[in-house]
Amino acid sequence: MPFPRRLEQLQTPALIIDARLLEANLRTMADHLPGDHLRPHVKAHKCTELARRQYEAGHHGFTCATIREVEGMAAAGLGDDLLLANEVVDASRLGRLVESGTRVTLAVDSEATIDAARAGGVREVLIDVNVGLPRCGCAPGAAGPLAERARRAGLEVRGVMGYEGHAVGIEDREERADKVAESMQILAGAHEDVGGPICSGGGTGSWDLNTAATEIQAGSYALMDTAYAALGLPFATALSIVATVISVNGDGWAVADCGLKALGMDHGDPSMVGGHAVLYCSDEHVVFTPAEGAPYPVVGDRVGVLPAHIDPTVAYHEVAWVRDGDDIVDRWAIDLRGW
Amino acid sequence: MPFPRRLEQLQTPALIIDARLLEANLRTMADHLPGDHLRPHVKAHKCTELARRQYEAGHHGFTCATIREVEGMAAAGLGDDLLLANEVVDASRLGRLVESGTRVTLAVDSEATIDAARAGGVREVLIDVNVGLPRCGCAPGAAGPLAERARRAGLEVRGVMGYEGHAVGIEDREERADKVAESMQILAGAHEDVGGPICSGGGTGSWDLNTAATEIQAGSYALMDTAYAALGLPFATALSIVATVISVNGDGWAVADCGLKALGMDHGDPSMVGGHAVLYCSDEHVVFTPAEGAPYPVVGDRVGVLPAHIDPTVAYHEVAWVRDGDDIVDRWAIDLRGW
Repeated sequence: MPFPRRLEQLQTPALIIDARLLEANLRTMADHLPGDHLRPHVKAHKCTELARRQYEAGHHGFTCATIREVEGMAAAGLGDDLLLANEVVDASRLGRLVESGTRVTLAVDSEATIDAARAGGVREVLIDVNVGLPRCGCAPGAAGPLAERARRAGLEVRGVMGYEGHAVGIEDREERADKVAESMQILAGAHEDVGGPICSGGGTGSWDLNTAATEIQAGSYALMDTAYAALGLPFATALSIVATVISVNGDGWAVADCGLKALGMDHGDPSMVGGHAVLYCSDEHVVFTPAEGAPYPVVGDRVGVLPAHIDPTVAYHEVAWVRDGDDIVDRWAIDLRGW
Repeated sequence: MPFPRRLEQLQTPALIIDARLLEANLRTMADHLPGDHLRPHVKAHKCTELARRQYEAGHHGFTCATIREVEGMAAAGLGDDLLLANEVVDASRLGRLVESGTRVTLAVDSEATIDAARAGGVREVLIDVNVGLPRCGCAPGAAGPLAERARRAGLEVRGVMGYEGHAVGIEDREERADKVAESMQILAGAHEDVGGPICSGGGTGSWDLNTAATEIQAGSYALMDTAYAALGLPFATALSIVATVISVNGDGWAVADCGLKALGMDHGDPSMVGGHAVLYCSDEHVVFTPAEGAPYPVVGDRVGVLPAHIDPTVAYHEVAWVRDGDDIVDRWAIDLRGW
């Protein structure tokens, strides 16, 4: 098939990135958090082509959530300084990357994960500290002793990380700011005990509120989703899915070909461009009530779908198509999927 | 990496199929619905190796939800009789399969989709009838005229299909039976108007209740999930995800590496083997309260996760590992993903 040049030539469902909005989002972020003040999280887009734009915007260190993401970034030549902000029990694949010249830093939060880092051949770690989100991270008081243990094991401890995931989604900005500050106070205390230059934390929801971390791990800001859009951040929704209307029912609903397997659903139903109201999604369908006042949809119409949660949405797609208006200007592989 | 021979050698998260339970499920179904009485739906597993077992169990016709599924089944030599039980606006890829000798039957529910079938080179269709689920399918009274129109366009009309998706998940068996019967009465009426040998419908939840359809489109029965397990069907949960505990918190939770990108979440949180209670999932984590009375988990432990909805779970994974006890006996590609 020839490379599609126009939006209407794409087979659907198709993941679409708006080049201008993406560019504006990257610029807004880089203006506020230039260079190493941002360590973009690639889990939100899983796309080395997009990461390359972040690199070109001045951010040379990246955050990853999986070993595959670290490997893919290294293979794409973006391995200056990769942080796997997650614990692993088998670090041997990371050790092979270190051996071949990639700089890999691994989060550790226990003696077992320190031992795993060392056994696998990783040389640099951050102590992952629990700052209030019930997930990974050691108790703040344990950070110092763990750092000591890591150093005794011959590891370079670059500092601490702690993710205030329970705070970044709070709608009220002041309340969010308070919770972020509370978490970062905990992290700063642990950082004093641990030492090292890095204090890594934050996300898109705290991009300008988290002033304590030396680097912010934001990822969603580049493409955004409806959950983050509700916070009123200065980042535009640059990602959508184009779908085709395949069935229209006179009793008040229509069906387009963008279902559960094209959408992360943990944050709930997607929204639709043009005011259509989503009734529900099934495997390959979004069923919707057409917007009032607009022309009733007909079979073959294209509709835009906006996911509620970007990360698990992108992970379903092999490629993203980059649009400039109605022109398709590029095709980016979603090449960091899997584990 | 050498092919892992034992469950504990797998990198996690890993999709696991229990060979014996799968075999038992296939046998139970084939005993009740032998040969062409079942048209297994491949959307539930997206795996041609599994479809091959269904073929060997006597079912030579298959149901698909996407063009990619049809193409993949044809490429795997399983193209005796493929039904795309969904409407499409561009059928040209299907037409190319027909041209090369694959038997493809396409669902149509409007003049536009009939025109699309013909323009794309598809020769055989089923009239898709709405039997109560607000999704695709024409009004029952429109089925006859649409069949006529399709025949005038030179298409072979093999009969009707109608999916009672609003009925298959009803927990109470009698109520489910009533709703299924109601839907199939509608479909039978349309079938009379349309003609042709096929009346296709049903799913795992109505496998033994839908006695009106000439063929049942069940898919989930082979592997199952916790939603269907709640119905008390005689099919075992043959699919799970094995995950590794990566962090343990003394305050009452632990974290394993099976998150939103390894699980379809539209039916809610997964369950866990061994009585652990899921607190929540994030992108790469399941956070859980360890089962009382059992040894508290330690970092490195393996845990089993049971998805709530199989179809969008499988669609996240590149491969499934086939287990026989703790031995890994095969590796099946999930090769029907995408569109």
